[in-house]
Amino acid sequence: MALQNGDIKDLDDLFVHTLRDIYYAEKQIAKTLPKMIEKAGEGPLRDAFEHHLEETRDHVKRLEKVFEMHGVEAKAVKCPAIDGIIEEAEYLIGDTATTEVTDAALAAAAQAVEHYEMSRYGTLVTWAQELGRDDCAGVLRETLDEEKEADAKLTQIAEDRLNTRAA
Amino acid sequence: MALQNGDIKDLDDLFVHTLRDIYYAEKQIAKTLPKMIEKAGEGPLRDAFEHHLEETRDHVKRLEKVFEMHGVEAKAVKCPAIDGIIEEAEYLIGDTATTEVTDAALAAAAQAVEHYEMSRYGTLVTWAQELGRDDCAGVLRETLDEEKEADAKLTQIAEDRLNTRAA
Repeated sequence: MALQNGDIKDLDDLFVHTLRDIYYAEKQIAKTLPKMIEKAGEGPLRDAFEHHLEETRDHVKRLEKVFEMHGVEAKAVKCPAIDGIIEEAEYLIGDTATTEVTDAALAAAAQAVEHYEMSRYGTLVTWAQELGRDDCAGVLRETLDEEKEADAKLTQIAEDRLNTRAA
Repeated sequence: MALQNGDIKDLDDLFVHTLRDIYYAEKQIAKTLPKMIEKAGEGPLRDAFEHHLEETRDHVKRLEKVFEMHGVEAKAVKCPAIDGIIEEAEYLIGDTATTEVTDAALAAAAQAVEHYEMSRYGTLVTWAQELGRDDCAGVLRETLDEEKEADAKLTQIAEDRLNTRAA
């Protein structure tokens, strides 16, 4: 059952709610990435997605560890933000005519996902510290760093494509 | 009318579609920020939101300039991603009990919005360059830089709160 209106009384409730939101998001991403891998052309983009799918499975496990450390049940609450980002991604990917354009749309969609996650994990790390849970903050920061790296890798792929075109 | 399936044939179509997506998003943000300002307690968070509302109005105008430079009609297409992010923000803000927790939820919601915009403008700058539209890229980069600054400002506010609490 999701939290009902008025259930968020303090920062701890907000922290747990947001953990459950990103838990839902990570699970949706783990379901969506295989479809993105299938659509991507061979090359660095597909490799980056395959690598990130493995990382995403680790992120789910890390969240389960944080739930346990914090003594709350690991459950997911529906996250309209990630649902919207994925809906947009699926629309654009279904909509593009060539592999080149599909890859550009896929990379853009993936960067929107990464940025959503970076914002949520950044927030969770700060709140964990405020709550005196440096142990949880440490685990969450590992994932935050991987999301940042995944985003930087996608930016690099886009820049390489730009430079190849310019050459 | 939104683009229909199969309407995105090349990178130019994808660029124009994404411009229209972020145009919709900026307009929704301009409508939502006044509600966030109303909910925020007095202090640096409210000031940051007020400053960002003015910037957001400029971002709308800059997008209209880019549409004109690129010779396409300025129109908005529904963006499920920003709708989802805002839906989540409104749920959380309505749900929190104290000013302190409301401010934490508001700042987190704003950072999710900033990150969405950073990903979209980052993509648009790269695509404008690929399309040989360095003029459009320059205008879009101005907004990208302001979104990054707005996000950094929110991170700073959260860290200041953390340090005050720790002191």
